[in-house]
Amino acid sequence: MKTDAPLSPVRLEAHAGPGQPDPSPELETLYRGFESELLVPLWTEIGDLMPLHPKSKATPHLWRWDRLVALAEQAGRLVPVGRGGERRAIALANPSLGGKPYATPTLWAAIQYLMPGENAPEHRHSQHAFRFVVEGEGVWTVVGGDAVRMSRGDFLPQSGWNWHAHHNAASQPMAWIDGLDIPFSYYTESQFFEFGRDTISPAEKTTPQRSRSERLWGYPGLRPASQPDALTATPLLAYRWVDTDRALAEQLALESEGHAVTLSPGHAAVRYTNPTNGRDVLPTIRAEMHRLRAGASTVVRREVGSSVFQVFDGSGAVTVGDRTWAVARGDMFVVPSWVPFTATAVAAPSPDGSPTLDLFRFSDTPIFEALHAHREMAA
Amino acid sequence: MKTDAPLSPVRLEAHAGPGQPDPSPELETLYRGFESELLVPLWTEIGDLMPLHPKSKATPHLWRWDRLVALAEQAGRLVPVGRGGERRAIALANPSLGGKPYATPTLWAAIQYLMPGENAPEHRHSQHAFRFVVEGEGVWTVVGGDAVRMSRGDFLPQSGWNWHAHHNAASQPMAWIDGLDIPFSYYTESQFFEFGRDTISPAEKTTPQRSRSERLWGYPGLRPASQPDALTATPLLAYRWVDTDRALAEQLALESEGHAVTLSPGHAAVRYTNPTNGRDVLPTIRAEMHRLRAGASTVVRREVGSSVFQVFDGSGAVTVGDRTWAVARGDMFVVPSWVPFTATAVAAPSPDGSPTLDLFRFSDTPIFEALHAHREMAA
Amino acid sequence: MKTDAPLSPVRLEAHAGPGQPDPSPELETLYRGFESELLVPLWTEIGDLMPLHPKSKATPHLWRWDRLVALAEQAGRLVPVGRGGERRAIALANPSLGGKPYATPTLWAAIQYLMPGENAPEHRHSQHAFRFVVEGEGVWTVVGGDAVRMSRGDFLPQSGWNWHAHHNAASQPMAWIDGLDIPFSYYTESQFFEFGRDTISPAEKTTPQRSRSERLWGYPGLRPASQPDALTATPLLAYRWVDTDRALAEQLALESEGHAVTLSPGHAAVRYTNPTNGRDVLPTIRAEMHRLRAGASTVVRREVGSSVFQVFDGSGAVTVGDRTWAVARGDMFVVPSWVPFTATAVAAPSPDGSPTLDLFRFSDTPIFEALHAHREMAA
Amino acid sequence: MKTDAPLSPVRLEAHAGPGQPDPSPELETLYRGFESELLVPLWTEIGDLMPLHPKSKATPHLWRWDRLVALAEQAGRLVPVGRGGERRAIALANPSLGGKPYATPTLWAAIQYLMPGENAPEHRHSQHAFRFVVEGEGVWTVVGGDAVRMSRGDFLPQSGWNWHAHHNAASQPMAWIDGLDIPFSYYTESQFFEFGRDTISPAEKTTPQRSRSERLWGYPGLRPASQPDALTATPLLAYRWVDTDRALAEQLALESEGHAVTLSPGHAAVRYTNPTNGRDVLPTIRAEMHRLRAGASTVVRREVGSSVFQVFDGSGAVTVGDRTWAVARGDMFVVPSWVPFTATAVAAPSPDGSPTLDLFRFSDTPIFEALHAHREMAA
Repeated sequence: MKTDAPLSPVRLEAHAGPGQPDPSPELETLYRGFESELLVPLWTEIGDLMPLHPKSKATPHLWRWDRLVALAEQAGRLVPVGRGGERRAIALANPSLGGKPYATPTLWAAIQYLMPGENAPEHRHSQHAFRFVVEGEGVWTVVGGDAVRMSRGDFLPQSGWNWHAHHNAASQPMAWIDGLDIPFSYYTESQFFEFGRDTISPAEKTTPQRSRSERLWGYPGLRPASQPDALTATPLLAYRWVDTDRALAEQLALESEGHAVTLSPGHAAVRYTNPTNGRDVLPTIRAEMHRLRAGASTVVRREVGSSVFQVFDGSGAVTVGDRTWAVARGDMFVVPSWVPFTATAVAAPSPDGSPTLDLFRFSDTPIFEALHAHREMAA
Repeated sequence: MKTDAPLSPVRLEAHAGPGQPDPSPELETLYRGFESELLVPLWTEIGDLMPLHPKSKATPHLWRWDRLVALAEQAGRLVPVGRGGERRAIALANPSLGGKPYATPTLWAAIQYLMPGENAPEHRHSQHAFRFVVEGEGVWTVVGGDAVRMSRGDFLPQSGWNWHAHHNAASQPMAWIDGLDIPFSYYTESQFFEFGRDTISPAEKTTPQRSRSERLWGYPGLRPASQPDALTATPLLAYRWVDTDRALAEQLALESEGHAVTLSPGHAAVRYTNPTNGRDVLPTIRAEMHRLRAGASTVVRREVGSSVFQVFDGSGAVTVGDRTWAVARGDMFVVPSWVPFTATAVAAPSPDGSPTLDLFRFSDTPIFEALHAHREMAA
Repeated sequence: MKTDAPLSPVRLEAHAGPGQPDPSPELETLYRGFESELLVPLWTEIGDLMPLHPKSKATPHLWRWDRLVALAEQAGRLVPVGRGGERRAIALANPSLGGKPYATPTLWAAIQYLMPGENAPEHRHSQHAFRFVVEGEGVWTVVGGDAVRMSRGDFLPQSGWNWHAHHNAASQPMAWIDGLDIPFSYYTESQFFEFGRDTISPAEKTTPQRSRSERLWGYPGLRPASQPDALTATPLLAYRWVDTDRALAEQLALESEGHAVTLSPGHAAVRYTNPTNGRDVLPTIRAEMHRLRAGASTVVRREVGSSVFQVFDGSGAVTVGDRTWAVARGDMFVVPSWVPFTATAVAAPSPDGSPTLDLFRFSDTPIFEALHAHREMAA
Repeated sequence: MKTDAPLSPVRLEAHAGPGQPDPSPELETLYRGFESELLVPLWTEIGDLMPLHPKSKATPHLWRWDRLVALAEQAGRLVPVGRGGERRAIALANPSLGGKPYATPTLWAAIQYLMPGENAPEHRHSQHAFRFVVEGEGVWTVVGGDAVRMSRGDFLPQSGWNWHAHHNAASQPMAWIDGLDIPFSYYTESQFFEFGRDTISPAEKTTPQRSRSERLWGYPGLRPASQPDALTATPLLAYRWVDTDRALAEQLALESEGHAVTLSPGHAAVRYTNPTNGRDVLPTIRAEMHRLRAGASTVVRREVGSSVFQVFDGSGAVTVGDRTWAVARGDMFVVPSWVPFTATAVAAPSPDGSPTLDLFRFSDTPIFEALHAHREMAA
């Protein structure tokens, strides 16, 4: 009695086409043999498996910030924060990735929300993470006992395997976005997780303006002589908006003075880096802030790997493949692998008075650079 | 009529459990809102997404060499080799990866088969590849015009984006195995492919014993002064059995003489490396040959990432998680991420007279090492 | 008539001793043969050439700042600055290095002096350099057209082969110190020099508070996305005292709060680094600022390679080998290779009110680290 | 009355010239002040210290092998080998380096000679070393207990801080050359030395054809999986002539077949490398073997840093700066920094039948590459 084939997950069908064998009873027998032995031929799969260039399963998509915040507020009332669920985080699910909480095949992007006085319990995981604050303040992320303030425009990297918790010390709720490499770690099956204390100590609920990490590491080009060389993970736990903003403003000012320091005319950008090695702030995630002068556009380009953007300020239009959206503060969108992208700032200052379009971006580029697989092209 | 929700791929269900909000009509409304906006909360997914350690979707499985060869021979009669299908390659499909041609989540492993006089057309791709020959001879792989002989025990790396074709110059068919990072490239959407000439020139159909690459690079510790430093891809196109065999035999001999040069008692191993930088032979694939003295076992260990093995010679038993198989020449099996593995050589020499168990292994370890995400433990 | 031997620079003398051949007429003949053929045996030289540990030819020595400044002022009146002499720089000559302008066998240290309105002409050289300002202001160093302000406490690296000039825009003279790897480059015969314009353009004689390099690079952990990766030379042309001072103060404050961030109790230190790779600010020179709390001492240690120190502020005592000096602002001293060094801050605040002893230090350590030859020990 | 000035090693003289201050009594006073304070101005020294390009203190020079061997044999009769003198090594003393045993400012090159049955006692030092054998056999170098055969054409690297001794197991004397970075270590004051056992054990006086290191590491592209990654020092203790010869012969053969694998027409070369990282075989010394086809010449070039050559086989002419010599087996010569060099093989096979000119070369290039200070040019 034959029972193997029905149980096999492999399903092969002979079909005509270039490079395909002629359908025949013998071929059918062969294909049943493949199924029975859990084998799949290259010739039926190659077009999908090995395309001429990346054809992303992900879709360009945009999420409106007001909708995200509205749902997060609703969750704030209904969903407690505590051990087990760990975080009140709500992730973007790319429409063509099967309903999974993946903004792109490799990146997780979520809005996290904490009510006044709430604490998210301590844990650590091998996945690399960051927080970015588009609005609000009042939450401190406590990393290994170091309380790090979160305020509008701040970028807080959280490299893998560091203990961390969140604490809302204010009288109003706060929302921010989290970025992680959860889908990549999940797919490559390389993730570890450990629960910590359910609540941090009162002593850790301090609310300093500057974290210990900033007091130790937050100076351009200076490193504490007591610390070891070239740390894999950045020891700087907050990159403040005051610095980011000034760096971008100066790039545009220098451009106006005639110096070639922008990516293209009117397009300034800074990358967050690990000060101990000058490389990307996290081993798997690149994070950048871009600023477009009113009326300026980025060069249209495509690159290997995917990105998630959040509009930090201003307004404009973004085009991802064949989709174009008008965007405003807080809106988030994804750029799948090898899909052309460009952004344009509105010609006149935005209604809120911002003379520029500021875009926060994170991507999986360091993965490809580490493996010598990165490519990009203007297009 | 609004129809977004029904079209959403997101499906959320409230359920009781630690860290979960209490089911309620308001929660249902919230979840419908999430679905409508393409959002997924962390708290319903965290157990699967962020486990305490990798829990592989892949299953330990073993493929018998005689069954692979029998089906490949059958395919040799029915399936032509040519442009479009590109290769008569038949891939291992892990039983729990949905019928896809993935031996593991990141690795492709296939038997390739070429009839006398046949040619596989030229192409190139960004995926990294290798050939390993468990038996037979007669085929030359032509890489950028350099004809490389394939014989039992030889390992032929084929780093990404090099033109290559295969040519069977013998009067009998030949089978060998191919290993590639196709699933990894597919998932991360970083792959490129280009068609080359349909047939290589007669001048390239030479059948030299040593390829040009070996004549230039095949000397321990010597590099041609004319060549550039630290190539990403290994320039050595064949690692011959005579060297591999001798290296393993000498490790065991040195061990017998009292020197600590084996991985554990009776367990010798060599890694194929890129001579220009001493690192793994391919940026995404580690390849090794292991030899167990009769009666010896490997230390039981688990590590991040997955491996595919082929028994090169001898016989013994392998245990992958809760599965154990007796194995013989040519058998192939997979070790998923973080699943314990051990192998034992039979105590007496094998029927074919081999005094040892030789195991060829390849894995995705370089990916994790490059990203500082590798872990392993004895267990 | 034989005349070779008298012309030979080799002079050998037989002498009794362990490992030495017995003097004899035959040995004399052999030694004359060596001289004639320009040969020197190991056995007569090994004790000096290959000691058990470094025995420096250099001597611990201290130069008083008031004497340096007095002579520099005198030179300011007598010695013009211009093409040919290039700079009004006066170098420390270690007393046991033959009267050469070498502070140590590898390092050049000099006081440079510029009168009101004077310009030092443009040139570039492969030697790496820096300026450090212990007092005064008013001079701008113009590097590739970028005018960089020099003020008390500032550190200005000047990596090799960049065009540079100096311009005194003030109404009073200014002195500062220069550090270079001139002796190392000279000895290893690896130096290049090129003359530039005799005078920089009026447009370059601007006196901005912040240089273009600071406007582009002077933010902790942020890099301009338009700039290339991992530059050999630091692109940041000034490390300002406000940052250095704050970094040191915070280390001591964090220590007081119970955190292990100092080198030893009461001993804070920062290293100037290249922000593009996190490594030493110059390929051959390490530069650091140290701060000792009142009454604190550094751990006594010795290390391969030599250092030059300048007292930036406060007062205390330093011990180099068997020499001890009381030191005050501006004093400079050298620590030869493998000679033990320690410093102690006076127990009470210094007369000028400084509660600490601040020591600027530069050394040749990166040379030894790059060649895997660095060693150090507490002793 | 004590007068410092007469004791100062500094001697300054005012002289007229471009960039020099006008001689005057005041200038004399200033210069006496400099002398008294151990100071030297840049303006009197810059021409020598900072030349437009390296102007080596070393002189091109050639030593004839028959003269070296004759003196070594004489030393063999008169000079014992033992503790204290350590080695019967006789070093080349560049004629313009003051009679010191420096072939060049950074490199030591010596002929070493061991009589039948003699042992050179065990020691270790931080200086990096190698042996190269131009003729003879019979000596084994014992490195950490591993006896390494020395035969014609073999290259034996000896990286710093490994215990080593030499043992002549034959019935005739043997000579070979040693290369070390002794002058560089001496000048930079970074050397350590330790005495070992006076005599190695009988068990270590074995005379194996292949050392343990070769049995473990001597296979192209294969590394023992049990060994750690990327060792600073090469673990391969002998690079055999059979490999070097074949690699050179194949380069010329491939050139004849139309492939661009030589440095220039008729000029093949291999570099000895550390197989664990693909870099130079020693951190401070590059070693190469060059082969010129009969009648072929090298491109004339100059580079930063110095080289020592030994003619391994054949005959021809070499030009170093303005010196040209006809050379034959064993002759040694030096190429100082930035001095143009070229070699030409005799048009007809040499008297001993060799159809090529083989030149062994070592240099200090890795020092400059590690410090980003290397330059070269055709000239």
